[in-house]
Amino acid sequence: MRVLGIDPGIAIAGFGFIDKVGHKLTPVQYGCIQTAAGTPSQERLLQVYDSAVALIDKYKPDAVAIEKLFFNRNVTTAFDVGQARGVIILAAAQRGLPVSEYTPLQVKQAVVGYGKAEKRQVQEMVKMFLKLSAIPKPDDVADALAVAICHAHSAVMVQKINEVRR
Amino acid sequence: MRVLGIDPGIAIAGFGFIDKVGHKLTPVQYGCIQTAAGTPSQERLLQVYDSAVALIDKYKPDAVAIEKLFFNRNVTTAFDVGQARGVIILAAAQRGLPVSEYTPLQVKQAVVGYGKAEKRQVQEMVKMFLKLSAIPKPDDVADALAVAICHAHSAVMVQKINEVRR
Repeated sequence: MRVLGIDPGIAIAGFGFIDKVGHKLTPVQYGCIQTAAGTPSQERLLQVYDSAVALIDKYKPDAVAIEKLFFNRNVTTAFDVGQARGVIILAAAQRGLPVSEYTPLQVKQAVVGYGKAEKRQVQEMVKMFLKLSAIPKPDDVADALAVAICHAHSAVMVQKINEVRR
Repeated sequence: MRVLGIDPGIAIAGFGFIDKVGHKLTPVQYGCIQTAAGTPSQERLLQVYDSAVALIDKYKPDAVAIEKLFFNRNVTTAFDVGQARGVIILAAAQRGLPVSEYTPLQVKQAVVGYGKAEKRQVQEMVKMFLKLSAIPKPDDVADALAVAICHAHSAVMVQKINEVRR
């Protein structure tokens, strides 16, 4: 099973494709989609959507996992991140891919085994699970890989997806 | 000039197409896109996007105006509304349509001439400007028409759009 993990954002959205075969996780491709601050938001959304479509069509994941943020003091940021999430989820939905959402707490529990883990601990575990030589940069990329690992580890979720697919 | 006004949302998104010829405003079509609460959010986003695309392709607006909310106590709602806004803005951007965003304050100022106007006053002005026999229901539809009127009244904005289009 190939999972695409996403840490959504309009200025920068991290992505990470990983393969799960048995209990083994292998990184396929990871990086980030960036858009320039001076660009009109409609243009930036188009860029994020087009990049998401291109990545999905190239690496053909079986499932998409995306970080869900509930807590954020800045509502304007929440709208902007929401818009970016919307077009990425749309890209997946148009290809019939199941999209699972995980809170940062769920990601930390799945990756580190402890919901209040520090960011650094999560990143170290991402490096270890995927046998990487270094922690991927920027943080958005490591976060995207973490949510992909979280999904791969969530056997219950995978089962649910299979049920939905029949 | 034909303007599409949008009051975005995932459960219900109001839309209103109006024509502006000289100083005269004429309603073309208005209503709302609704999605069922039990449906997975990726499916609902797909429905909102597909409906937006179908409406844009049928009524061919020259510009899109969308309500921009800055203040909202509920961040989860902000994410959801943001996601719906994202896919609607994407639909417009994919067709090369200019998208203008207006805050509720700007809409009230443009429609009623007073930024702290009551909802009911805005709705009465929408009815009057468009020579409707009744205030459109639900509120989302009246709000969408209000933002369309706001855009039509904003000569400066229209000029900016023309500059961008060249």
